[in-house]
Amino acid sequence: MAESQRHKAVRSIEWTGKSLRLLDQTKLPTECTVIDCLDHKAAADAIRSMKVRGAPAIGATAAYGIALGALELSERPKDEFVSGLKVVADLLGQTRPTAVNLFWAIKRMMAVLDNRPEATVSELVHSLIAEAEGIANEDVEICKKIGDNGAELIHPGDGVLTHCNTGALATVDYGTALGVIRSAHAQGKNIHVYADETRPYLQGARLTAWELVQEGIPATLITDSMAGWLMKQGKIQAAIVGADRIAANGDTANKIGTYSVAILCKEHGIPFYVAAPLSTIDLSIASGEEIPIEERPAEEVTHVYQRRIAPEGVEVANPAFDVTPAEYISAIITEVGVVTAPFGDSLSGLFHADGLKGRE
Amino acid sequence: MAESQRHKAVRSIEWTGKSLRLLDQTKLPTECTVIDCLDHKAAADAIRSMKVRGAPAIGATAAYGIALGALELSERPKDEFVSGLKVVADLLGQTRPTAVNLFWAIKRMMAVLDNRPEATVSELVHSLIAEAEGIANEDVEICKKIGDNGAELIHPGDGVLTHCNTGALATVDYGTALGVIRSAHAQGKNIHVYADETRPYLQGARLTAWELVQEGIPATLITDSMAGWLMKQGKIQAAIVGADRIAANGDTANKIGTYSVAILCKEHGIPFYVAAPLSTIDLSIASGEEIPIEERPAEEVTHVYQRRIAPEGVEVANPAFDVTPAEYISAIITEVGVVTAPFGDSLSGLFHADGLKGRE
Repeated sequence: MAESQRHKAVRSIEWTGKSLRLLDQTKLPTECTVIDCLDHKAAADAIRSMKVRGAPAIGATAAYGIALGALELSERPKDEFVSGLKVVADLLGQTRPTAVNLFWAIKRMMAVLDNRPEATVSELVHSLIAEAEGIANEDVEICKKIGDNGAELIHPGDGVLTHCNTGALATVDYGTALGVIRSAHAQGKNIHVYADETRPYLQGARLTAWELVQEGIPATLITDSMAGWLMKQGKIQAAIVGADRIAANGDTANKIGTYSVAILCKEHGIPFYVAAPLSTIDLSIASGEEIPIEERPAEEVTHVYQRRIAPEGVEVANPAFDVTPAEYISAIITEVGVVTAPFGDSLSGLFHADGLKGRE
Repeated sequence: MAESQRHKAVRSIEWTGKSLRLLDQTKLPTECTVIDCLDHKAAADAIRSMKVRGAPAIGATAAYGIALGALELSERPKDEFVSGLKVVADLLGQTRPTAVNLFWAIKRMMAVLDNRPEATVSELVHSLIAEAEGIANEDVEICKKIGDNGAELIHPGDGVLTHCNTGALATVDYGTALGVIRSAHAQGKNIHVYADETRPYLQGARLTAWELVQEGIPATLITDSMAGWLMKQGKIQAAIVGADRIAANGDTANKIGTYSVAILCKEHGIPFYVAAPLSTIDLSIASGEEIPIEERPAEEVTHVYQRRIAPEGVEVANPAFDVTPAEYISAIITEVGVVTAPFGDSLSGLFHADGLKGRE
């Protein structure tokens, strides 16, 4: 009960019936501010400016963004409603390029129009809101299944490294990789988490450390540069990360620095796990080479909270993600099961096992 | 001429005759503040609080700290002068544990007393100041030799990764690993530098990027987590770092994160070089396991310029250094030559070649 209240307290995304309430993740951990998105443009802006981030959370926000667009267009004739909603979908689809959950959610929402060609505008508005609610609620259940499936890979007393934030804040609730950590902790496995701070955006320091403190899970915050040294000292027995897009061959795009963590794991003989819902798996692309990598503004590197930390005039690189080749990945943990290499067969098999259609 | 003026502009350590002027490196790159150390306690505080940092710069500052102590004690009888100076040396020796140059410089300064048993206090004060000046001036020449020796390993058009700051700010002038970069650039090798920002203390973002902009050397600032991804994309052909202590077998203590860089280099088949003066080599210890690793305050991780970036109550690790085993090191670049594995023989050989006595 107390456990579920704590989860409730950090639910990052809530639908009020006419607006979308988001915990502003740019303000954490020092301020807990809720923003109220009254229209689809506000939802798009929240994704673009990373007030909400994390692949599953981005997907749910985009779904609600389309629901908001539907409400905005609800007085229009049907043809204007349909064409207007396509403009809404296009805008939301242009917010961030890497996380495939964004496109998955938009596609699923727009399929409502195709599936109900005879429906009135009023009926479509109702159905679209219901679909967004479905995506969000399913996400919570999916995360709990990922958590339970992944927890079996964690041994009692393990030191577990994670990178970026994949918790309740990155999803609708519970989390993916952090969901696994949450489940392992709840099972009394006596784990200790090492959280990479995850420069430049500090999702680990600001968000993951905050969730771990909230949950009372023993954890140590480290800079990204310390992970290798802690592995060398035998403090880490497993690494687990989320994903923004997984290609058909298992190559995984995730927060910048993930690739380095995977190499460090290989060198130290430590298993490297990826935890993600099926909606993050993109069977339409053969390998990670086809995943677009977002380049973010230089200011994220040269400034921390508006404070300049680098000299004027310096050139900066700021890829938001990298791609970890499948060969470095010990297992991919999903809501329908855990798969290992060769991922080409095992990943597509997950969709058939679940009776779902892959993203061909 | 313009080149030498630029170097002059960032000389981090200058002796005025009665005080030690240091560029306050905690204020860079946004403020260029010079602090004037009037006594040995101010010099010790500057080392402890990292107003001056970098192994060779710490060594020179400690030497001048003893010179300041000698001036403070110059009116005392000789027995009080000698015992007082030992207290000064002890205090300076307790400022930071990892960089061996600190102990090397203190030992060299205190040897002045042993070498001139008949000298008066006034003569000793004069000799000690001269010895500190010698250490500082030699350091500049040593760095230029390191730069020239190392530049031969850099190929035209190379992308060169560096970690932390090893430039004019980390030495008396010119730099060690950054000295190699400076020399390669001066030779027209058309290199491009990738500078790790080096969390938590941001020596790369604040200091290395600043020096590179000052020198007009083409460079890109990255977060520590980006290095692996840039290697994967073929942008980096060599990595070069400094050292705080090199054991007899070649194991090298350097800024936290160096070990991870070395592993990333191994995985991508990129040479990993260490550049350091002989005074950083500690033949008295067999391996890196004997090097004490300083743990610094948690606030360096939880705060950036006094701004909190992590939640209250979170546990933090903050080892300031790590040890890169010799097996990852392609070559060690010193002022008397470049050596490769097996380092056990090649490192001790450097001291004999130079007619110097090792730190046995």
